[in-house]
Amino acid sequence: MSPGQTPGRLTVAGLGPGALAQVTPEVAAALQAATDVVGYLPYVERARALWQAQGQAPAVAWHASDNRVELDRARQALALAAQARQVVVVSSGDPGVFAMAAAVFEAIEQAPPEQATAWQALDVQVLPGITAMLAAAARAGAPLGHDFCCINLSDNLKPWPVIARRVQLAAEADFAMAFYNPRSRSRPEGFVRLLALLRAHCEPTRLMVFARAVSTPDEALQVCTLAEASPDMADMRTVVLVGNSSTRLVGRWVYTPRFYGLEGTLPAASGSTP
Amino acid sequence: MSPGQTPGRLTVAGLGPGALAQVTPEVAAALQAATDVVGYLPYVERARALWQAQGQAPAVAWHASDNRVELDRARQALALAAQARQVVVVSSGDPGVFAMAAAVFEAIEQAPPEQATAWQALDVQVLPGITAMLAAAARAGAPLGHDFCCINLSDNLKPWPVIARRVQLAAEADFAMAFYNPRSRSRPEGFVRLLALLRAHCEPTRLMVFARAVSTPDEALQVCTLAEASPDMADMRTVVLVGNSSTRLVGRWVYTPRFYGLEGTLPAASGSTP
Repeated sequence: MSPGQTPGRLTVAGLGPGALAQVTPEVAAALQAATDVVGYLPYVERARALWQAQGQAPAVAWHASDNRVELDRARQALALAAQARQVVVVSSGDPGVFAMAAAVFEAIEQAPPEQATAWQALDVQVLPGITAMLAAAARAGAPLGHDFCCINLSDNLKPWPVIARRVQLAAEADFAMAFYNPRSRSRPEGFVRLLALLRAHCEPTRLMVFARAVSTPDEALQVCTLAEASPDMADMRTVVLVGNSSTRLVGRWVYTPRFYGLEGTLPAASGSTP
Repeated sequence: MSPGQTPGRLTVAGLGPGALAQVTPEVAAALQAATDVVGYLPYVERARALWQAQGQAPAVAWHASDNRVELDRARQALALAAQARQVVVVSSGDPGVFAMAAAVFEAIEQAPPEQATAWQALDVQVLPGITAMLAAAARAGAPLGHDFCCINLSDNLKPWPVIARRVQLAAEADFAMAFYNPRSRSRPEGFVRLLALLRAHCEPTRLMVFARAVSTPDEALQVCTLAEASPDMADMRTVVLVGNSSTRLVGRWVYTPRFYGLEGTLPAASGSTP
């Protein structure tokens, strides 16, 4: 950075699940102040739509990249910020949940020696967003209204036995569960294995929610029991929620009671599960 | 409802952790359209500040109530909506995470017989918000960047042995963990017991984040190891994050790597844990 130059800033921002109405004002403001926006192509497109919807703003350079190059993208963003640019890295949902925030810190930690000092000194901020499981839960009712866990099914990131062990322990703990990245073209079998695991550890009447592309024009919500679930219900844009053993239906709504294991706190409802 | 009247609507809305800049536009719009706002006093005050910041709007009736009367509050909101009013129930954070959404569905399920049909027929919607753990994680870096779980420590809602078992299983699964409601005046001992449990199941260098009142003027963030943690670091306004066994520091940032248990994916960093 030359003397007198504005220092660079790297903002990692969550765009929420899709709708502009679910983007926080602080994320919108960060995009207005950006000189460079970096991200996976569909998220850069979404950021550009938001930026255009806000009207007047200085020119922005849009840096869209392919999926699965998170570390390269993080390094590109850090290099731009080190040149005193105002860089926003966009993620869908929340940047801290299976998205770009961890990749940025990994890139800082693994910085090339000649960049390490500059990258560690950067003004980095992370702006939270509405993550997919919470948007999906809201549409379905309150399936995550009691203790829950959140698991990324992408086995690019960890071996399948780690996932299997976590699902088993989560079922033993009777957590409600949220699963991200249930299927992809390269891993069509992952979700089949998950359903088999869930069937080994949970009762067949356990409620599930398949929430696809929530808050976008492609939104689709399916509620069913574990017995009724089939692998084709999940695709790359689906988040899958699994209730705990108390999760129930009231009308079209799925909810998990706040109380658990306390005598007399929740009268058994007749006809409240399918 | 009389013929010709607008049907009532019940919206359960998440105000985020505190800052107006973290309230989504759809929640702000719901408040603008409300005839009645129902909630715990400090959240009603926050909704009123937001509503005032937006300028002109029709008159709103503000219904503030005390803590721990969630079901009464839900019933009041349902009764108002059944009178064809536009009711917004406000929660801090996300309404589906240990907040009012589940209470509303519990109240619908347990409706008095003479109200059951009307309450089930209501136009109910849940609007997600930035929940405390994600706001806290963003401030700290990306401590929830890998599989994690979320546990409410309030033992008003479940017996302590259920909590203890879940923490043990979560540690076995090597989940990062987020704890809500770590302490209250009525349960000062709960967090002491949690620390003892964590020390029984996790290594002393495990990283923790104590995030108090994130995004408000009272915000305070403390990062320490499990060995250094003490019960006075948490109060009623604190969310506590615990990393998994790979969670590390880079500069002032705490992050959990995306990769787990894969040979060679993450070089061990020297000096990256305290």
